[in-house]
Amino acid sequence: MSDANDTAPPIRRLIVIGLGLIGGSVALGAKKRGLVKEVYAMNRSADTLEYARDKGIADKTFQSIEEVLEGASDEDLILLGVPVLSLGPVLEQIHKHLEADATITDVGSTKAALVEKARQVWSTLPSNFVPGHPIAGSEKFGVQAANGDLFEEHRVILTPTGAEDEHHLQRVSDLWSGLGAGVDSMTADHHDKVLAATSHLPHVLAFVLVDQLASMEEQTEVLRYAAGGFRDFSRIAGSDPAMWRDIMIANKESISARIEEFESHLNQLKTALRDSSPEQIQEIFERAQKTRNGFLHKSEENK
Amino acid sequence: MSDANDTAPPIRRLIVIGLGLIGGSVALGAKKRGLVKEVYAMNRSADTLEYARDKGIADKTFQSIEEVLEGASDEDLILLGVPVLSLGPVLEQIHKHLEADATITDVGSTKAALVEKARQVWSTLPSNFVPGHPIAGSEKFGVQAANGDLFEEHRVILTPTGAEDEHHLQRVSDLWSGLGAGVDSMTADHHDKVLAATSHLPHVLAFVLVDQLASMEEQTEVLRYAAGGFRDFSRIAGSDPAMWRDIMIANKESISARIEEFESHLNQLKTALRDSSPEQIQEIFERAQKTRNGFLHKSEENK
Repeated sequence: MSDANDTAPPIRRLIVIGLGLIGGSVALGAKKRGLVKEVYAMNRSADTLEYARDKGIADKTFQSIEEVLEGASDEDLILLGVPVLSLGPVLEQIHKHLEADATITDVGSTKAALVEKARQVWSTLPSNFVPGHPIAGSEKFGVQAANGDLFEEHRVILTPTGAEDEHHLQRVSDLWSGLGAGVDSMTADHHDKVLAATSHLPHVLAFVLVDQLASMEEQTEVLRYAAGGFRDFSRIAGSDPAMWRDIMIANKESISARIEEFESHLNQLKTALRDSSPEQIQEIFERAQKTRNGFLHKSEENK
Repeated sequence: MSDANDTAPPIRRLIVIGLGLIGGSVALGAKKRGLVKEVYAMNRSADTLEYARDKGIADKTFQSIEEVLEGASDEDLILLGVPVLSLGPVLEQIHKHLEADATITDVGSTKAALVEKARQVWSTLPSNFVPGHPIAGSEKFGVQAANGDLFEEHRVILTPTGAEDEHHLQRVSDLWSGLGAGVDSMTADHHDKVLAATSHLPHVLAFVLVDQLASMEEQTEVLRYAAGGFRDFSRIAGSDPAMWRDIMIANKESISARIEEFESHLNQLKTALRDSSPEQIQEIFERAQKTRNGFLHKSEENK
């Protein structure tokens, strides 16, 4: 254990509901850095919980939300790590069983649907709820892939609803900063629009491409001669299908809009190809290359 | 210099026309492994040639095809490393200036258009011409990125025309084997069909996606929050625009067919999304994930 953070009092109990890659990584990192006094974890799978206890990811584990919330206090932070579409039922359980003014946050990849769900469950937006999204995915998943340094030098987007008390927002922000991440803030709608372009659409394209190749007669050959490019491309197609299914449904509007926009850009290239216009093709490719190189440059700067 | 290959006599002179990543890597690897006695290189750029001499990539360098072919013998191998659409004019120059029965091969990403061009230039398919394509790309380009081990554990596809003499085919095959690659053989048409799926289409999608993001109002933000997935995805969008423009034009038919097939698969996902059908979405994602994991498994086996 490293030294406790001395600028803000550590969270008494970190309560992780849904222990996967992200929840497990927050737990490991927060313990390692002394950001929390103890970790409680809730998951349906007994195997996952056993693994978490064995590896020191959680101090105590539970198979129901009611149990894990027993004895929760105002100094606790509840982190929701369940798939996006399971967040609704989980919020209902929390509303029913949480008595303290503990901070509630989540790590889901879409935000607007969740905020709407919270409004329904509490009849008004609760003052202890601060939605969040760490931009630190991986094609790995499950608590077995948990890594306490996962968030270092990554961005975390918080989407405060406007109804939250300042100290809850601060507590969530401090947790992520303590894990080495940079914390930004924007509305839930804006988050969903930006992420549809930067993360959800690329996943759609990767899944669809690999599905297409899988359906080709020449599948075996296609995979045999898959060059480096395809390997990178297909890495993200190895992501958790159930998690991504949920993201699609939860951010349906923004993703559909981005897919249509993509189709119209693809059409430009098709037209250039049909007309055998090298100039137009090169123009598209050069614009892409320039943007991509600018992006890599920015990534380096952020480090 | 390492020991000469003792199963086959080494090539006397390796003549590289168009000294980029691939041509430079073949030259470096062949010299290092004693597969050739000397390397002659032709390029338009004097800077490239100076670099090649400085780094020991080429023994002698020339700025015209006529000069680099002077004194060529039956024991020489001519490797064409120029962009796909420049291969036609280069073949015409070779036809005009090559007097010996030297072996001719290339490293282009499309094959059928090249074979057709050779037939036009020679009026019949020449017996010393063996088209080839090493499946070992990189988003890097230029002779500065040359690496003598680039082809180790990679596949090289030869597309013999049927008109070639056996010893020319053997010489090309031996060169690639000597560089550590596995050598396969198929028709030019089949090569173009398979590569359209496995390499050309992924590049199209990557270029178009990055071009789309570049045109968004939120461009700066989009790049700021680009997660790991996007980074991998966009790596291939950093490839040489001119080279890929040529590949598009040269393999237009196959690439167009694959783009249309992709659009129809994308439509399936759009429909599932419009109907909010989690089952259909998950089915597509799971099929993709399974294929992708099978591919990774196969890649490991090939090593």
